Amino acid sequence: MQDDHIYRVIELAGTSDKSIEDAVSSAIARANKTIRNLRWFELIQTRGHIENGKVAHYQVTLKVGFTMEGAA
Amino acid sequence: MQDDHIYRVIELAGTSDKSIEDAVSSAIARANKTIRNLRWFELIQTRGHIENGKVAHYQVTLKVGFTMEGAA
Amino acid sequence: MQDDHIYRVIELAGTSDKSIEDAVSSAIARANKTIRNLRWFELIQTRGHIENGKVAHYQVTLKVGFTMEGAA
Amino acid sequence: MQDDHIYRVIELAGTSDKSIEDAVSSAIARANKTIRNLRWFELIQTRGHIENGKVAHYQVTLKVGFTMEGAA
Amino acid sequence: MQDDHIYRVIELAGTSDKSIEDAVSSAIARANKTIRNLRWFELIQTRGHIENGKVAHYQVTLKVGFTMEGAA
Amino acid sequence: MQDDHIYRVIELAGTSDKSIEDAVSSAIARANKTIRNLRWFELIQTRGHIENGKVAHYQVTLKVGFTMEGAA
Amino acid sequence: MQDDHIYRVIELAGTSDKSIEDAVSSAIARANKTIRNLRWFELIQTRGHIENGKVAHYQVTLKVGFTMEGAA
Amino acid sequence: MQDDHIYRVIELAGTSDKSIEDAVSSAIARANKTIRNLRWFELIQTRGHIENGKVAHYQVTLKVGFTMEGAA
Amino acid sequence: MQDDHIYRVIELAGTSDKSIEDAVSSAIARANKTIRNLRWFELIQTRGHIENGKVAHYQVTLKVGFTMEGAA
Amino acid sequence: MQDDHIYRVIELAGTSDKSIEDAVSSAIARANKTIRNLRWFELIQTRGHIENGKVAHYQVTLKVGFTMEGAA
Amino acid sequence: MQDDHIYRVIELAGTSDKSIEDAVSSAIARANKTIRNLRWFELIQTRGHIENGKVAHYQVTLKVGFTMEGAA
Amino acid sequence: MQDDHIYRVIELAGTSDKSIEDAVSSAIARANKTIRNLRWFELIQTRGHIENGKVAHYQVTLKVGFTMEGAA
Repeated sequence: MQDDHIYRVIELAGTSDKSIEDAVSSAIARANKTIRNLRWFELIQTRGHIENGKVAHYQVTLKVGFTMEGAA
Repeated sequence: MQDDHIYRVIELAGTSDKSIEDAVSSAIARANKTIRNLRWFELIQTRGHIENGKVAHYQVTLKVGFTMEGAA
Repeated sequence: MQDDHIYRVIELAGTSDKSIEDAVSSAIARANKTIRNLRWFELIQTRGHIENGKVAHYQVTLKVGFTMEGAA
Repeated sequence: MQDDHIYRVIELAGTSDKSIEDAVSSAIARANKTIRNLRWFELIQTRGHIENGKVAHYQVTLKVGFTMEGAA
Repeated sequence: MQDDHIYRVIELAGTSDKSIEDAVSSAIARANKTIRNLRWFELIQTRGHIENGKVAHYQVTLKVGFTMEGAA
Repeated sequence: MQDDHIYRVIELAGTSDKSIEDAVSSAIARANKTIRNLRWFELIQTRGHIENGKVAHYQVTLKVGFTMEGAA
Repeated sequence: MQDDHIYRVIELAGTSDKSIEDAVSSAIARANKTIRNLRWFELIQTRGHIENGKVAHYQVTLKVGFTMEGAA
Repeated sequence: MQDDHIYRVIELAGTSDKSIEDAVSSAIARANKTIRNLRWFELIQTRGHIENGKVAHYQVTLKVGFTMEGAA
Repeated sequence: MQDDHIYRVIELAGTSDKSIEDAVSSAIARANKTIRNLRWFELIQTRGHIENGKVAHYQVTLKVGFTMEGAA
Repeated sequence: MQDDHIYRVIELAGTSDKSIEDAVSSAIARANKTIRNLRWFELIQTRGHIENGKVAHYQVTLKVGFTMEGAA
Repeated sequence: MQDDHIYRVIELAGTSDKSIEDAVSSAIARANKTIRNLRWFELIQTRGHIENGKVAHYQVTLKVGFTMEGAA
Repeated sequence: MQDDHIYRVIELAGTSDKSIEDAVSSAIARANKTIRNLRWFELIQTRGHIENGKVAHYQVTLKVGFTMEGAA
């Protein structure tokens, strides 16, 4: 039962031209294609690129935790 | 007059399934029920829970400052 | 060519009563009036002011990088 | 329902002459006398006093989160 | 006896137009009106406001520890 | 020979209802099922959950280094 | 109106053989010669030089914020 | 197109008896054997071992980012 | 009398194959052979070595304070 | 005389395909074109870009201090 | 000549019931009894003890650098 | 045997007009004159002095660990 508390934590970056939340979602959606059991994230850096004096896109770096089943 | 600058700072966490800003508001709204004179906040951590490969909710941790009147 | 990688980094704060993203944009728009070649930003602090138990405005502090042409 | 995720976080220090874990427990037991709904802790500092070349007691500083009901 | 080592730690800000030490004292004097058994402080931030090119007042943020008797 | 010094570092969390050391061991035992050549760990966070005013379990986050053979 | 909240932040060091506060003032007075609208400072480092076993002078490093008018 | 901005970040350590740069290269060369699309690194720690009063080898720890294709 | 508050602080690492507490004790016992008046410690890093998928020993790094009598 | 100790500190990034030291020099050489009286630097970040499994160039971020004469 | 730049850095704590500056001086004066060639200090922590709602004394922790002659 | 793992850690600064690696070596060579059994170092700060728009010398600050025999 407590096995549920054994996490592995990985670091990911995602981007969006809309918002910080959308950049978070893009990173998690990408990770979800290959990792099962994603449980939580922590936003550790928010950056972005500027073009012509405007934010071209937001780039977030996340720590993402997932419970381990078959592989570490 | 400068009494206005005597703050106490507390730490709070709030959540929202909509956005980071909405999670900030939920924490402040809750604190406002019992503490008067809330003045500022600082966002110190942004986390969230993931369900089925999507952000289920955002969870923010804030430092919140309020000017002290009757109680510390 | 690699000259493109010689940046200067400055620190700015911007505000918005709408969202964190809008506060980022306000700081960058202001910097863009006097500095050319803004390239990236990093969000280093998110704060805000509270009035009547609600967020009155968000205030973000950014590091902003720009490529140097004529002046440092 | 998500109200469950609205925490307040306080900082406590506890001591023990036995172990770090026992010092954690002493701080939490003390907090539990006056605060309901304690949910989690984070160990943020481990110190201790030395007497005659031995550890006289361990002193831990914790952040402790509790869900808010009636008071902030 | 070791109960003496069970602290709670709160965060306060105080100001003074005279000196950093005076700003520390103002914060502690204010806390002392409502909290008994204040024992130590740690200075965690020193800021100030500037008017007409001079320091108008110093603002210090402190962690303040007090031993717990009846309430956490 | 110095190849022995080429590490990869991953981040893991483990839990135990007994002690911090036991939570460390649980995380390492789990990683050992799928990763060979684990060499060292660093404890980067110690947290825990509280139930009924007692520590229900300790949760540690570790960085774990392993020497790389076939895969990064 | 909120334009008042658009700051630029610069980093300065000042010295004094009298006190930390006097070193802060020396840095701000110097900045005030060429920058208008200085609003706040944060003390980020306090160092000093020692001669003959005494403090010869204090050296403080400040972040200083000013509202932007014509130039960034 | 922006997919190019979805990174995964891993942590590696490499060594060299020649220089810090050479230790960086050894870590990256090793990672390149099994990971495609390495894009950037950040040096997060520089250590080394000493034998007979001389640096026997440098050991660097890097964060390395790579764009994700098939696997996270 | 306040001379009692003039500390020097040194950094030590100790190990144990039993527990974190035992590693702390080993470092302090070793320091006690040559330094009098050890007063307090702070645990600043907890690491360990892994052999065959188990913790072979814990290694702690401490700051240790001692009051100065004859020598700094 | 002590005026010599009034610094302004700016942040710069430079690159080189040769070495970390060369990237430091490129940033300083660029700053020297427009700022007089550069005195010291501190290396605050070392990053780099990777192409084809090799370091394509090093990128360093520096804080650079200069004594102020006519302008802040 | 550059030998002048080979420092050793130690950590000291001093106290004063007057001011932060006086606590710095007390630590340096004590170190000066047994160490020659003290050159600089950096203030890394400012704490204090409180008695009867007033600061009883300030306690500063310093890093102090000295050039090495005969002994490390 | 595990005695080998009882370290003391000191902090040193060394300089070189050639390279960061050479500055590391100068600090270690100096320490080696008076301390036996130096085992490892960690680079904690890289600074330098600038003269005429060029790096005059690099200055590194190291933590250096050595196993303790007769003296702490």
